[in-house]
Amino acid sequence: MEAHPCCNALFTHTQFQDGALRHTITVQDVEDIAFGGAVLGTGGGGDPYVGKLMAQRAIELHGSPQMISVEDVPDDEYIMCAAGIGAPTVLIEKILRGDEAETVFRALEAQLGRKAYAVMAAEAGGVNGTIPIAVAATLKLPLVDADLIGRAFPEIQLAIPTLHGIAATPMVVADEKGNHAVLSTISNHWTELIARSMTAAMGGQILSALYTMTGRQAKYATVPRTQSLCLRIGQTLREARHGKGNTLHALLAVTGGTHLFRGKILDLDRKTEKGHVRGVVTIQGLDEFRGETVAIDFQNENLIARSGERVLAAVPDLITILDQDTSYPITTEGLKYGLRVNVIGIPCYEQWRTPEGLALGGPQHFGYDTPYQPLAVKGAQ
Amino acid sequence: MEAHPCCNALFTHTQFQDGALRHTITVQDVEDIAFGGAVLGTGGGGDPYVGKLMAQRAIELHGSPQMISVEDVPDDEYIMCAAGIGAPTVLIEKILRGDEAETVFRALEAQLGRKAYAVMAAEAGGVNGTIPIAVAATLKLPLVDADLIGRAFPEIQLAIPTLHGIAATPMVVADEKGNHAVLSTISNHWTELIARSMTAAMGGQILSALYTMTGRQAKYATVPRTQSLCLRIGQTLREARHGKGNTLHALLAVTGGTHLFRGKILDLDRKTEKGHVRGVVTIQGLDEFRGETVAIDFQNENLIARSGERVLAAVPDLITILDQDTSYPITTEGLKYGLRVNVIGIPCYEQWRTPEGLALGGPQHFGYDTPYQPLAVKGAQ
Repeated sequence: MEAHPCCNALFTHTQFQDGALRHTITVQDVEDIAFGGAVLGTGGGGDPYVGKLMAQRAIELHGSPQMISVEDVPDDEYIMCAAGIGAPTVLIEKILRGDEAETVFRALEAQLGRKAYAVMAAEAGGVNGTIPIAVAATLKLPLVDADLIGRAFPEIQLAIPTLHGIAATPMVVADEKGNHAVLSTISNHWTELIARSMTAAMGGQILSALYTMTGRQAKYATVPRTQSLCLRIGQTLREARHGKGNTLHALLAVTGGTHLFRGKILDLDRKTEKGHVRGVVTIQGLDEFRGETVAIDFQNENLIARSGERVLAAVPDLITILDQDTSYPITTEGLKYGLRVNVIGIPCYEQWRTPEGLALGGPQHFGYDTPYQPLAVKGAQ
Repeated sequence: MEAHPCCNALFTHTQFQDGALRHTITVQDVEDIAFGGAVLGTGGGGDPYVGKLMAQRAIELHGSPQMISVEDVPDDEYIMCAAGIGAPTVLIEKILRGDEAETVFRALEAQLGRKAYAVMAAEAGGVNGTIPIAVAATLKLPLVDADLIGRAFPEIQLAIPTLHGIAATPMVVADEKGNHAVLSTISNHWTELIARSMTAAMGGQILSALYTMTGRQAKYATVPRTQSLCLRIGQTLREARHGKGNTLHALLAVTGGTHLFRGKILDLDRKTEKGHVRGVVTIQGLDEFRGETVAIDFQNENLIARSGERVLAAVPDLITILDQDTSYPITTEGLKYGLRVNVIGIPCYEQWRTPEGLALGGPQHFGYDTPYQPLAVKGAQ
């Protein structure tokens, strides 16, 4: 049995009749994808623990979904994305009821007059990395090993399909009470504005089915192998926790990342406004970084890391804050005074580095006039 | 040719093959309905001039729609309501594009798998009293001589169908840019919350198709003859303007209203918040009311008129402020210091006076602990 090119030897592979290699997502995989995803979530996407529980529960109830690659999806079949929208902190208080996934997918299928062939994640990161696993299990559909961003971003239009003119709508949203809506807009930017306001009215957190695309489109307008990368990162963290080598080095190797800083959280200015968590965390250097101070601005996700005027890394590149002891990623809600952390930078997906990609999701979009300085691409192991 | 019971001799009647009497709505009728509607709009519903222009333009382009009574609608046919949602002040700046009506009705028909037999107004009052005329003309459908409230109210769930368990959704909303949505909710209260937030995101004013009901339902869950009443009020105002008698007395006679107060606007506290115009207008008595001061609270519509602790009138009864010279109604946006006005009270539709009606749209709903004191019903001429 040949190994899937993007999966490591721990995977359970199945040879299907069409010749494609598939991986069955286990309960252990969900935990690894949840914590691995939080590294690509760059502080956003919510507590991976909640998304993990939702997906593990769905697998217990409905069985394991298959993970397939974008190449496995026939050109004319439809992929639909599942994503929670809203402040992830709300989700902890207000777990979805369970049947919203079926509601939104069936409504979107009815709207399009087409069945979904597979489910895909809209972004990497705690909750939205694992909700699609729960949806795939519930609907007994495969999960595509890809996402729309290669990281987490706080707005719906900040996704690779926008660069290719693929619409987020028709989009179905539903809350846990039974309210739902089908939205059709003139642009993905309008989708963000309208869906964000609906989310607030519907209680702060909703489930959505959006960004329907064909298998043909998915082959150029998504970030391939995101889920298996999350799985590898999660496995690396878990193995390292059991004493197998230097966790930070292993993590940098698997992500192709750079160690930017080490220090202690000195100050934290964080507030929730307009459905986002915004703020700045200030970190005082330790060890080889002693005497230096780094400030990281975030809006759900970490946006820019600066030492005085010098930019260490900025969106769309990934900035992740890790617990110094365990190398587990810390979400923006998990930041607290006195915590000792490492800061790493990971190069973003290549399409974000084009002029169109930077215009969409670069520093200027978030209000910084800093020119984008790409992080070195080292190539992940 | 027999006169329609609710129409006066000025109407143009047509005997149709089914035996029902119908009235063809002329350009002059639109003006009368717009200004007459503003009396039942109790200060809300926006500038009648804008709605008048929209409906007159639609008639010029598409021809006059027919006005039919609820009894003319077969029991199993569908009636759909058309209404603008949002702060009416925005509409003056941002006239709808013209094809939103067709968009929302066609989308609602597609959602229900049924064609609309007729269009109905959701409320009486400037813009929402005349938008349905424009929609009926554009879609070449008849307009039902009824509405859902018998006045204007600032929230979607405040309507007679709510008392009968008839849902406002499925509801289609569209803006002038081309964004639209189909909303389905668990209650009319949720419809209000979600649609109100979408309106803000979509630019402050949207067109909607909502409150679909059968002819059978419309016969008990609407306020009959609202449009012909608006027409009679408008005609009365116009005739009086041409010197035919005492306008105020004529208006009280046609509406069954009571003269509550006469005075000069002494103070005005008005602000726009959460998509509504809120405030208090204070009026200093003149003539037989000299020495007395009345304060009227409004939220888009006038809610309660008080002289010290004494309540002159309160929702759901209608409180309308009229220009003392012309007796033309003054909207909450049109109030200004120094204006000499008459205040009249008009009894609300009888179903509002039931315990369920008062629980839905009585003083308590708007935050007043005053018990409801019904205005005397005099019977309109």
